[in-house]
Amino acid sequence: MGNLIYLDNNATTKVDPQVLDAMLPYLQEEYANPSSVYDFAKRANHAVKEARGVMKDFFNAKDEKEIIFTSCGSESANTAIRGVLNMNKNKRHIITTKVEHPCVLNLYQTLEKEGYNVDYIGVNSNGELDLAQLEEAINDDTALVSIMYANNETGVIFPIEKISEIIKSKNKETKFFVDAVQVSGKIPIDVQALGVDLMGISGHKFHAPKGIGALYVNSKTLITPLIIGGHQERGKRAGTENVPYIVGIAKAAELAQDHLKYEATEVKRLRDKLEKNIVKNVFNARLNTGIVNRVPNTTNIGFEYIEGELILLHLSDLGICASSGSACTSGSLEPSHVLRAMNVPFTAIHGSIRFSLSKFTTEAEIDYVCEKLPGIIEKLTNLSPFQDELEALKKLRH
Amino acid sequence: MGNLIYLDNNATTKVDPQVLDAMLPYLQEEYANPSSVYDFAKRANHAVKEARGVMKDFFNAKDEKEIIFTSCGSESANTAIRGVLNMNKNKRHIITTKVEHPCVLNLYQTLEKEGYNVDYIGVNSNGELDLAQLEEAINDDTALVSIMYANNETGVIFPIEKISEIIKSKNKETKFFVDAVQVSGKIPIDVQALGVDLMGISGHKFHAPKGIGALYVNSKTLITPLIIGGHQERGKRAGTENVPYIVGIAKAAELAQDHLKYEATEVKRLRDKLEKNIVKNVFNARLNTGIVNRVPNTTNIGFEYIEGELILLHLSDLGICASSGSACTSGSLEPSHVLRAMNVPFTAIHGSIRFSLSKFTTEAEIDYVCEKLPGIIEKLTNLSPFQDELEALKKLRH
Repeated sequence: MGNLIYLDNNATTKVDPQVLDAMLPYLQEEYANPSSVYDFAKRANHAVKEARGVMKDFFNAKDEKEIIFTSCGSESANTAIRGVLNMNKNKRHIITTKVEHPCVLNLYQTLEKEGYNVDYIGVNSNGELDLAQLEEAINDDTALVSIMYANNETGVIFPIEKISEIIKSKNKETKFFVDAVQVSGKIPIDVQALGVDLMGISGHKFHAPKGIGALYVNSKTLITPLIIGGHQERGKRAGTENVPYIVGIAKAAELAQDHLKYEATEVKRLRDKLEKNIVKNVFNARLNTGIVNRVPNTTNIGFEYIEGELILLHLSDLGICASSGSACTSGSLEPSHVLRAMNVPFTAIHGSIRFSLSKFTTEAEIDYVCEKLPGIIEKLTNLSPFQDELEALKKLRH
Repeated sequence: MGNLIYLDNNATTKVDPQVLDAMLPYLQEEYANPSSVYDFAKRANHAVKEARGVMKDFFNAKDEKEIIFTSCGSESANTAIRGVLNMNKNKRHIITTKVEHPCVLNLYQTLEKEGYNVDYIGVNSNGELDLAQLEEAINDDTALVSIMYANNETGVIFPIEKISEIIKSKNKETKFFVDAVQVSGKIPIDVQALGVDLMGISGHKFHAPKGIGALYVNSKTLITPLIIGGHQERGKRAGTENVPYIVGIAKAAELAQDHLKYEATEVKRLRDKLEKNIVKNVFNARLNTGIVNRVPNTTNIGFEYIEGELILLHLSDLGICASSGSACTSGSLEPSHVLRAMNVPFTAIHGSIRFSLSKFTTEAEIDYVCEKLPGIIEKLTNLSPFQDELEALKKLRH
C-alpha cells in the first residue's frame, strides 16, 4: 500500500495533473492582465473567454454571460444570496434547510440579525428534505429559497427540479439558489432543466485547486456584486482575473464531464463495496442515510457507542484520511448538525464517519480500509464505557 | 531583442519562478484541506501558518492574527471598507481621494447611493495630496479615511505617516485604511511606524499570481467579514484556504523584501534613464508628475497633441507593453481621472503613457524603448491635426 489513502474528497481533492498542466503556461510566460490592450494580453484574455464557454457547458447555461468566476464556493454563495437580497430589499423572507453547509448557515444567522426571517426546512431520518414543509413556507414575501444540491456529509441528493417547480408554483418572483458544491463532478448538472436561478460551485471539490469557484446567474436574475470595483465579470465581481485557476477550473470541468459515467459506475461500485463491507463486518455500524438517492462517492456510517475523533486518529495512523463532518467545522466537538437534523440516534452521532471517494481511489485502497477498519472499531468498542448497550446491540444484530 | 518588453508591471507582474517552485508541492501532492484533522493535513496547515508569519513581517505587523488572506486587492479593499463601516453604523462620513484606484472609487460611489457622505480630497499638478483639505474634512462623524499609499498611474507616494497623524489628531476613533497595492515590493512597508489601522495588498503586483491578496487589520480594529461562512482566517474571511497561492504570496513577499534595495537603486536608475531620455529626445513629451516622491518603477509621460491608444498600439507592434491608465479601465475612452485631478493640460492628457518596470526589466530593454519610441511619437505627431500648436511648442522647448 502507498502511504496515503485519501477518502476525504468531499473536503477537498487532489489537483488533477492535467489541470496543473493546463494552468502552468499562465503561471509562467502568459502572465498578462487579461484587461490590458496590447497583443501580449490577448492570449490571457482569450483563455478566460474559452474557460467561460466551458463552464457555460458544464452548467448547461444558455449564455456565457451567465457565468461568474469567484474565488471559492463561499464567495459564490455569499454573492448569490446577498446579491439577490440586495436587489429585492422590500422582501424579508428566506427559506433554506437545516442541513446546509455550515458556511451558508452562518450567513443566514447573520441575515437573521440584520432583520431577515429565515425558515429552516427539516429532513427525515434518511436525510431527505421535507417538501411539504417547504411548500408551506413559501409566501409573497419570500425573496429567496436556498437549498443545496446534495449534502456534503451524507451525499443525499435533493430533488432540485421538483423543488424548483414547487417554488415557482407558489411565488414566481422568488429566486432559487442552489449550492451545488457537493455534486459538481459527481452527477450531471443542467441549470435549464432544473429551473434554478443561481447555482454555485467550487473547483477544489472536483480536482481544480482551492481558490476558484464559479457562480451561474441566469440572465433574468439581477444581483449586486459582493466585491465592487473594476469591470471584470461584467461588473458582477471585481478583481484581476485569476487566469491560471480560471483555466484550471475549466479543465477540471471538462475532465469531470468525461468522468461522469466512471463516477456513476466505478466510484459508486467502490463506495458500495466499502459501505456493505463495513456494515456487514462491524456489528455496531449503521448506514446513516439508508439507501436513498446519493452522490456516488459518499457514505456516512455511524459506529455506535464510540467516538468519531478516535476512529479518525487511528485511521490517520494508517494513512487513511476520512472525516466526521465538514472540514470547516473540524476540531469542533459539536455533533454534526446534519445528523442531528436527521435524528440519528445520539449513540451513533458522535461515532459517525464520512468516507468520500474520487476517481483516483483504487480498489486496493478500499480493500485495505475494509481489512483494517473492523479491527480499529473492535479495539475502540472494547474501550467504550457502554458495554451493556453494546452487548444488547450485538445480540439484536446477530 | 526578445519578443516581449514588459513595462506594465503596475497592471500585473510575471510570477517569479521561485514563487512557482514554492507553490508547486501544494498544487501536487500536498493537496489536503488545512482544516482537516488527520496527519496529511498538517503540512498544508503548517504552510499557511508559516506564510502568515512571513506576511506579518512583510507588513511589520505586531501579530500574525492581524493578517487576513484574501483573493485579490479588490477583496482586501472591500473587506476593509465595508468591514469598518459595518462596525460603526452610526457614523456616515468617509474621506478618500480623487485619485484612488477606480475599483475603490466605484465602491465609494455605491456607498454614496447607500447614504454615506464621501469627501474626495484633491491633488496638485504634481499629483501630491492636499493635506489641508484632508485635515479640514475630518469631523466627529468620520468613520473612515481611505487613501492609497502610492498612485497606480503616476507612482506618486502619499505621506501616510503624516496623514495618519492628522487623522488621529482630529478624531481618534476614525479608522485609516491604506490601499498599498502599488507600493508592495517597491518600498518598505511598516504599518506600525505608519500608524495605519488597515492595509490591503495584492500578490500579482509583486510577482505572486493573480488571485491572492492580503489585508492587515490591527488588533484594535474590528471588522465584519465580507465573505461569511467557515472559521477560516479567524472568522474574518470564509472559504477553504488557497494554500498554493498563500504559499506563493509569502514567497513573493520574502523575495520582494530581498529586492527592495535593488528596486531603490537599479530599477530606479532604469526608470530615470527611460524618463530622462524620452523627455530630452521628444519635444512634445512632458513628465506628468514633476520630480516628486514616487515609487521607483513608475513614470507617467504625456505626449502632447497625440492619442495614447495609438502610441500603445505602435509599441505593442514592437512587443513593448505599456498602458494609458489602470488595466481595470482599459478600453474605456474616458481620459484618466488621476491626470484630470492633477489638471494635466487637456492637450497632454489623452496622450499620456505609464511605463512601469520591475526587477526583471533589463537595461537592453530600456535602451530599445529609448531607441524606438521617439520615431513612433514623431510619426504620430506628424499625423496630428494640431500642427500649429505643435510648431509653437517646438519653438518654446528648443
